[in-house]
Amino acid sequence: MNALGRHLLLELKICNKEVLDDLDFLRDCLIEAAVSSGATVVGESFHHFSPCGVSGVINIAESHIAIHTWPEYQYAAVDVFTCGCNVDPEKAARLITERLGAQSHSLIELRRGLMEDSHARCAK
Amino acid sequence: MNALGRHLLLELKICNKEVLDDLDFLRDCLIEAAVSSGATVVGESFHHFSPCGVSGVINIAESHIAIHTWPEYQYAAVDVFTCGCNVDPEKAARLITERLGAQSHSLIELRRGLMEDSHARCAK
Repeated sequence: MNALGRHLLLELKICNKEVLDDLDFLRDCLIEAAVSSGATVVGESFHHFSPCGVSGVINIAESHIAIHTWPEYQYAAVDVFTCGCNVDPEKAARLITERLGAQSHSLIELRRGLMEDSHARCAK
Repeated sequence: MNALGRHLLLELKICNKEVLDDLDFLRDCLIEAAVSSGATVVGESFHHFSPCGVSGVINIAESHIAIHTWPEYQYAAVDVFTCGCNVDPEKAARLITERLGAQSHSLIELRRGLMEDSHARCAK
């Protein structure tokens, strides 16, 4: 069976507290992760909360990369959802994990859009 | 253990082909889903692909709602990631499933940001 997309869900713990509250840093980080993985950025939306925390989503031609941070807990939830034969979501996941300085992390991978036939083309 | 967020991942199959390629419809649908669930919309990014397909993300104050469609397969991948005591992600998920006319669907729920102590506050 082919899948249309790969969806990596990351739990990043014991992260660098300052970067978790730095919208510009996180935006640059996610864009760098997208580009390094081979994805094409088609849009974005970032928001800084009061008193702290950032939510951001990069809309990529092959789906999305999202981050939601809780600096008060040194925790970030990250999603790297890609589709396409030429996109490497693990590369994006590794980069983000390193940039956030996560001392502990876990990853779940889901295949999205399982297709029973061979017509599941790689990329949009 | 408390979790900071609830993340519903929907696989929507045998959907209405026309709406899956209608960016405006899908944008309105996701915004309605966000509002009806009690979430606050803080940003958005939508993109229409050639020859078909839409990717869209609504950035909400409690995370995000995302959709990626493959009209050629009548399939959509939907994520409803919320946090906050007063937000009901299932309500958003039900609305989107109905609006897309999905004849078959499956749902996985993940708890994001499990906290061992009682300090996991409900909402940002």
